[in-house]
Amino acid sequence: MSVFLVGAGPGDADLLTLRAARLLGEADVIVRDRLIDDSVMAYANPNAEVIDVGKMPGDSSSQTAINELLVSLGQRFGTVVRLKGGDPFIFGRGGEELLALHAAGIACDVVPGVTSALSAPLAAGISVTHRGTTRGVSVVTGTNASGGPVDFRALAATQTTIVVLMGIRHRRHISADLIAGGLDQSTPVAVIERAWTATQRTVRGDLLSLPDMDVTNPAVIVVGDVAALDLRAMAPWADVVLV
Amino acid sequence: MSVFLVGAGPGDADLLTLRAARLLGEADVIVRDRLIDDSVMAYANPNAEVIDVGKMPGDSSSQTAINELLVSLGQRFGTVVRLKGGDPFIFGRGGEELLALHAAGIACDVVPGVTSALSAPLAAGISVTHRGTTRGVSVVTGTNASGGPVDFRALAATQTTIVVLMGIRHRRHISADLIAGGLDQSTPVAVIERAWTATQRTVRGDLLSLPDMDVTNPAVIVVGDVAALDLRAMAPWADVVLV
Repeated sequence: MSVFLVGAGPGDADLLTLRAARLLGEADVIVRDRLIDDSVMAYANPNAEVIDVGKMPGDSSSQTAINELLVSLGQRFGTVVRLKGGDPFIFGRGGEELLALHAAGIACDVVPGVTSALSAPLAAGISVTHRGTTRGVSVVTGTNASGGPVDFRALAATQTTIVVLMGIRHRRHISADLIAGGLDQSTPVAVIERAWTATQRTVRGDLLSLPDMDVTNPAVIVVGDVAALDLRAMAPWADVVLV
Repeated sequence: MSVFLVGAGPGDADLLTLRAARLLGEADVIVRDRLIDDSVMAYANPNAEVIDVGKMPGDSSSQTAINELLVSLGQRFGTVVRLKGGDPFIFGRGGEELLALHAAGIACDVVPGVTSALSAPLAAGISVTHRGTTRGVSVVTGTNASGGPVDFRALAATQTTIVVLMGIRHRRHISADLIAGGLDQSTPVAVIERAWTATQRTVRGDLLSLPDMDVTNPAVIVVGDVAALDLRAMAPWADVVLV
């Protein structure tokens, strides 16, 4: 009896890992998140029980309920797949689930996935570590455990590309913090909505225009010089809104 | 005629994406990096020509030669796979190759992979964004374009887990910079060598012991409270060296 915490990648089923696809096919039970694409579920064992635990971010009571569900399923079934968008350890709360399973004595393994944090920019032609432009990439959440904004000022000095998950709601605050921290208000910004799906959309602008961008979740915010370029096109962005 | 810049993931072939495995099987030519595992090459079309362009990091003349090789192959073959360890856009120099191919008018697509920067910590049971412990993760290079060290002081204030690639040579400098930037010298550090291979090895210590750790490339350095925990084991680390 084992529980596998499996990263489903950014959306497109073609970006599942071989291990993830195989485990989905072998699963007796699949516990899935809100943002799992239907194309991914096409790899599931057709006889598997599928439990949808989609929830809003930051709800810790529902996380406790998920932990207990996984323990209970792990005690009753041979192969349980806990399917999480992106990577289980990148804001996936996989660590908490792993600890709960360990505490209950249930065997557990983790399968990394292509994280949305880094592949959503790629889907928009943005190389987050493009040589000569940046010295790295910082991936941070825009929303703290109680739903409030977090302090972005220290990030401004790092000379890294900044990728913000769960930041749409606090985009005014993020913009103000990064400018207060020393970034120029003309620093390029790209927001990629629904990366790797048929309805992917990219909005480009800068820190000054970020607060007023017409964008909705699920979306990733990219801040830094690399955000100005679409390396895939290197041409005016036909499907892109410039703000 | 197309060139595909394909992420091979962190080593274990089971962590290839479905798209990467399929493209390898369809390739007429495969241009591979130094750190590609033999198990990954088992997915290659047996009739494909395989060109090994393994090189030392930071050698820009060889990068120019690789760009020219890809253009030349893209003009002559139907499906060229440029296979890169991890993800093509995370310190993979995929952006430069993409631009060279665009400039030559050759169709090019990018396939993201599971990056070593985030999956090497996972392989050692480290959840780089564990809730309540950190607000994000910064992935940076420890070596600048001319082979020298880079300034790490500003990263110390970000409250993110810090993952350093290509940092082994400059580990004394990294330690000193992060302490000068405000991190406590007892901040946990883990170095993961050869993640996701049969010879994976993890060395744990802190910023004070980092300079004297007996570690070699390829390796990833993780700095932050999360580096103290092995969530997979939650027990004394049998295969781990404590420094």
